[in-house]
Amino acid sequence: MIRHTVAFRLTHPAGSSEEHDFLAAARVLADIPGVEQFEQLRQTSAKNDFSFGFSMEFADRAAYDAYNDHPAHTAFVAERWVPEVASFLEIDYEPLA
Amino acid sequence: MIRHTVAFRLTHPAGSSEEHDFLAAARVLADIPGVEQFEQLRQTSAKNDFSFGFSMEFADRAAYDAYNDHPAHTAFVAERWVPEVASFLEIDYEPLA
Repeated sequence: MIRHTVAFRLTHPAGSSEEHDFLAAARVLADIPGVEQFEQLRQTSAKNDFSFGFSMEFADRAAYDAYNDHPAHTAFVAERWVPEVASFLEIDYEPLA
Repeated sequence: MIRHTVAFRLTHPAGSSEEHDFLAAARVLADIPGVEQFEQLRQTSAKNDFSFGFSMEFADRAAYDAYNDHPAHTAFVAERWVPEVASFLEIDYEPLA
């Protein structure tokens, strides 16, 4: 299992319609084959500047790679993520052997 | 639900007995009252410098605060975390309302 997470901050004001629209549009990621346990989360620690997070799990590296290359993912990244995300950090976790 | 996560890198060489001992000692955190879904994880994204992660969930803020103040937690932080962790980032997630 690979748990892919990304913490991020948007360019939009908190609570704005643009923020709401971005989060709604991101739900398309949950329907990409291989994506399991998709979550949209609020980041609440004061020890970093991120406002939100997405978390999803893949059975293995092949499923993760297929997600990365899927046209629904690349389109979301190009059309929404790049222009609307101010900063982000990807962290991926796998069970400790 | 609050999911408390911390990604980190140790001062110890990868695969060393010191690394193994640190991770074994950290299992004490799982037994602190209020800690649910405790996980020790390997960080595998090349997009950051962290090697490991811990993830745990709390029912609410009171449970999280009790964990932070618990002597088993404060002792682990003082005796193991501070001297043996080279860098870390805490990220906390809550379900998006």
